[in-house]
Amino acid sequence: MEKTWATRAARATLGIDLHLEPAAGPGLRRGLTDALREAVRSGRLLPGTRLPSSRSLAADLAIARNTVADAYADLVAEGWLTARQGSGTRVATGVVPVRQPETPAGTSAHRPAYDLRAGFPDVSAFPRTEWLRAARRALTTAPNEAFGYGDPRGRAELRTALAAYLARARGVRADPERIVICAGFAHGLSLLGRLLRDRGADTVAVESYGLDEHWQSLTAAGLRQVPLPFDELGTDTRELTQGSAAVLLTPSHQFPMGVPLHHDRRAAVVEWARRTGGLVLEDDYDGEFRYDRRPVGALQGLAPDEVVYLGTASKSLAPGLRLAWMVLPPAVARAVTAVKGGVDTCGALDQLTLAEFIASGAYDRHVRAARSRYRRRRDALVRALAERAPAIRVTGIAAGLHVVLRLPSGTQCRVIRAAAVRGLAVEGLVPRHRHPEAAVEAPDALVLGYGTPPDHAWSGALDILCAVLSDPAVTGVA
Amino acid sequence: MEKTWATRAARATLGIDLHLEPAAGPGLRRGLTDALREAVRSGRLLPGTRLPSSRSLAADLAIARNTVADAYADLVAEGWLTARQGSGTRVATGVVPVRQPETPAGTSAHRPAYDLRAGFPDVSAFPRTEWLRAARRALTTAPNEAFGYGDPRGRAELRTALAAYLARARGVRADPERIVICAGFAHGLSLLGRLLRDRGADTVAVESYGLDEHWQSLTAAGLRQVPLPFDELGTDTRELTQGSAAVLLTPSHQFPMGVPLHHDRRAAVVEWARRTGGLVLEDDYDGEFRYDRRPVGALQGLAPDEVVYLGTASKSLAPGLRLAWMVLPPAVARAVTAVKGGVDTCGALDQLTLAEFIASGAYDRHVRAARSRYRRRRDALVRALAERAPAIRVTGIAAGLHVVLRLPSGTQCRVIRAAAVRGLAVEGLVPRHRHPEAAVEAPDALVLGYGTPPDHAWSGALDILCAVLSDPAVTGVA
Repeated sequence: MEKTWATRAARATLGIDLHLEPAAGPGLRRGLTDALREAVRSGRLLPGTRLPSSRSLAADLAIARNTVADAYADLVAEGWLTARQGSGTRVATGVVPVRQPETPAGTSAHRPAYDLRAGFPDVSAFPRTEWLRAARRALTTAPNEAFGYGDPRGRAELRTALAAYLARARGVRADPERIVICAGFAHGLSLLGRLLRDRGADTVAVESYGLDEHWQSLTAAGLRQVPLPFDELGTDTRELTQGSAAVLLTPSHQFPMGVPLHHDRRAAVVEWARRTGGLVLEDDYDGEFRYDRRPVGALQGLAPDEVVYLGTASKSLAPGLRLAWMVLPPAVARAVTAVKGGVDTCGALDQLTLAEFIASGAYDRHVRAARSRYRRRRDALVRALAERAPAIRVTGIAAGLHVVLRLPSGTQCRVIRAAAVRGLAVEGLVPRHRHPEAAVEAPDALVLGYGTPPDHAWSGALDILCAVLSDPAVTGVA
Repeated sequence: MEKTWATRAARATLGIDLHLEPAAGPGLRRGLTDALREAVRSGRLLPGTRLPSSRSLAADLAIARNTVADAYADLVAEGWLTARQGSGTRVATGVVPVRQPETPAGTSAHRPAYDLRAGFPDVSAFPRTEWLRAARRALTTAPNEAFGYGDPRGRAELRTALAAYLARARGVRADPERIVICAGFAHGLSLLGRLLRDRGADTVAVESYGLDEHWQSLTAAGLRQVPLPFDELGTDTRELTQGSAAVLLTPSHQFPMGVPLHHDRRAAVVEWARRTGGLVLEDDYDGEFRYDRRPVGALQGLAPDEVVYLGTASKSLAPGLRLAWMVLPPAVARAVTAVKGGVDTCGALDQLTLAEFIASGAYDRHVRAARSRYRRRRDALVRALAERAPAIRVTGIAAGLHVVLRLPSGTQCRVIRAAAVRGLAVEGLVPRHRHPEAAVEAPDALVLGYGTPPDHAWSGALDILCAVLSDPAVTGVA
C-alpha cells in the first residue's frame, strides 16, 4: 500500500506553522508554502508521500482552493514536490529530511557556565547594528568586479582603510600595496611558515612564553623553534643568533606575561634583523587595548623593511569574522601573495564591510567603548582580588584582555579543578603557554581572560574566582 | 620654521568637503569632523601641522566656536590630532597620508571592453537586495557564539541548509556532519591534495581536458597526474588503475567539453573506487545550470562512501563570496577537518547569510532567474553563430555557462588576436584546458563563457564574436 497523507493529518502537520503566520491575503500563500516546505524539510512529510488534492486541503483548512494550488505550484517549481498527471502531487523522492542543526563541536552542553580563559573578546558586545549599517553601505556601493575573483592580497578598499588606521593607531608604516588580508592570525602565520620553509629556513626563534597553537603551526610548516630567554625586561632578544631565519615576538604586550619589550631589546632585535637578514614577525594581537598610559607603538614603525606586522579583528571585533592583516616588507609581500595564491582568500563583502566600518569611524568608536568596558573589568578584578585574595599576585595588568595570576606553589591543578566544579573554566600558564623546550621557570599560575564573559556573567565569574582563590583548602592561604 | 596651517587656507582645504554637507545644527559638527579627518587622511594636512585656534577657525568659517572645539576634541580622541598646552592643536605625527585605492591587480585599465572567457558568472546580476535582507536576518538572529572561534567544518546552519538543498537539487546524499565549508573550490581541492599526500598518495588520475589551475594545485601538493582517455562518451574511466589514489572528475558536465559522463563510465568509476579504495573527487561546478532536460544527478548519490562532492557558490552567486562546500565520506570528513584546522575557515556572517539565503528560498529563485537568463544568452549565441558563422561548430550547449567553438585548423591564434584587437577577450582550448601529458587531440577551439558579460555588454560581445568568426581573413571561411 502506498504512503498517503490523510487530509485529516493536514491540520496536525501544518497547523502549528500556519498559526504562526496571520492567515490573511497574499501572506497566506507564502505562509502555506513555507509551512509545507518546512514539513518536507523536517521529515514530517516523507519522500514519495502523496498530498491531498488542492480542493480537499483547501476545504480542510477553510481557505481558497487557488491558494493551495499556488502553494503546490511554487513547491513543484522549487523541487520539493512533484506533480504528475494521474498520480497527484507528491513529496519529491530526492528530498532527504534534515535533522535540526546540532551544537557545533566545542560548544556542547558541557560548556562551562562561566569562562575566564584567555584569547577571546566579549562576543556578546559585537556591534551588530553598526556592522549591518556598514554592510548595507558596502553592498550598495561595491563595484561589480568586487563579486568576481579578487586580488589575492585582499580588497584594495580594506587595505587602504587599514593603512590609514594602523598608521595613526599603532604607528605602523603601512602602504596598501604591502598589506595582505588573511583569515585570522593563524592563517597569516601558516603562510609565513610556508614561505620561510620554501626559502630553506629550518629554525625560528620564539618567546619562552607564548601560545602552543603558534608553535604547532611552525612545526607543521617544518620549522624547529628555539625559545629565547625571558626576564623582567621581557624576552631577551640579545640572544638571537644567525641560526634563526626569523623571530616571532609580541613586542607591545608579551603574551601571556604582559610586559612590553624593553627598548634596548627592541633595538637589539632590529639590529639582529639588519645584520643577519632575519625576519621579525610582530604579533600585535591586542595593540588597541592599553589602559594606563599611551600605547606602545608597533616595532614595525622602527624597521618596516625587517618586520612583518600581524594584526587581527579577532580581539577588537570578533574571531568569527576571520579577518586579519599583515603589513609586509615589499619583497616579502610579493612572496606571501604567491604562497597564498587565489586559494584561501576572504569573502569580498566582509572585507568591504570592515573597510567601511573603519573609514566611517565606527571601528574607533567600538574600540573606545570596548576599551573602557574592559578597563572597568580589569579594575574590578584587581580590586576584588586585593580584597578577597590578597596573597595572589596579579601581573600584566596594563593592557590587553588578560592577566597572569601567580598561585602558591603546587596549587595550580587544585585551583583549576575547584573552579571547574563551580562551573568556571580557567587555564594554567603551563602547559599551553610555555614552550616545551624553554629554560624558563614554570610557575603555578593562571592566564586569566577577563574579556571572555558577556556582561551579565562577568560578576558571577569574578565571584567564583575569588571564592576559589580565597579558599584555604584550595590555595593553602586565607 | 615650523609648519603652520594659515587660517586663510582653512576655507580652501575644507571648503569642498564642507559644502557637501548641509551646514546645519548637529550635522555641522559631524561634517566638520569628517572634513578635517579626510584632510588629514588624504595628506592635505601633513603630520605635525599646527591647526588654527578654534576661535579663529570658527570666525573664518562663520560657525560657532564650540562646534570647532568639539570637532577638534573628537579628532584628538580618535588619534588624528594632538592637543598640548602651549603648543595648540596639531596633526598627529603618527598619521601617514594615504593614496586613493588603486585598481586591483588583474582589473587594470587594460581590461578588455568585452569578455567571453569561461569560468565567471555575470557578477552584475548579484542579488544585492536579497542578499542584504538575508544578511540582516542572519545578523539579527545569530547566537553570540557565532562571533567566536567556530567549528572548523563551518557553521552548522549553513551545513544543514546545504544538506537539504543538495539532496533535492543535485541528488546528493548529504548529512550536515559530513559537510565542510571552504573558501572556494580551489581551497577545497588544495585541502584534499594535502590529505591525499599525507596518506602517502603520489598519483591522481585526471581528465584529459580540464583546467590548468586544478592540475597546478595537485602538483603543488606533490601529486603527479595521469590523464584518462577521452572520447564522445566522455572521459574513459575504465582505464582507471590501482596506481591512482584518487580521480578528479566533472561527471555532470565535463569541463570544458560539455558532455555528461556516460552511465557505463559512471558505474566503472564507482566500481574502481570500491575495488581499489580510491577516492572520487566530483567537481560539480555548475550543476544548477542545465537547459534542455532534467539535470544529471550527482555521482555522489550513487556512492556516498567513495565520492567527495565539491560544489561552489562561485557560479551560482559570485566568486567574490569565496564560499564552497564538500560533502565527504565520514572517514574523509574527519581527516579533512584535521587538515583544515582552525587556520583558514570562512567568515561566520557570510556563512549565516548564505544559510538564510538558501533556507528562505531566495537561492532557488536566484538560480531559476539566472538559469533562464543564461538560457536566453545561449540560444542567442547558437542562433547568431548559425546565421553569421555557419562553418563554426558549437558543442557542449546543453548546460553550464560556456560552450566550445571548433575553429578551422590553424586559426585559433588568429581568432584570439582579431577578437583582442576589437576589444573582446576570448580564450583557446589549448593550452589552459588540455593536460600537458594528455594523449588526446589539441584542436583549434575556443572555450567561450557566455555568462561573463553584464547584460548591457552581451549583445555587443556577441556581435564582435560573430564579426571575427565570419571574417574570411581570420578563419578562412565565409
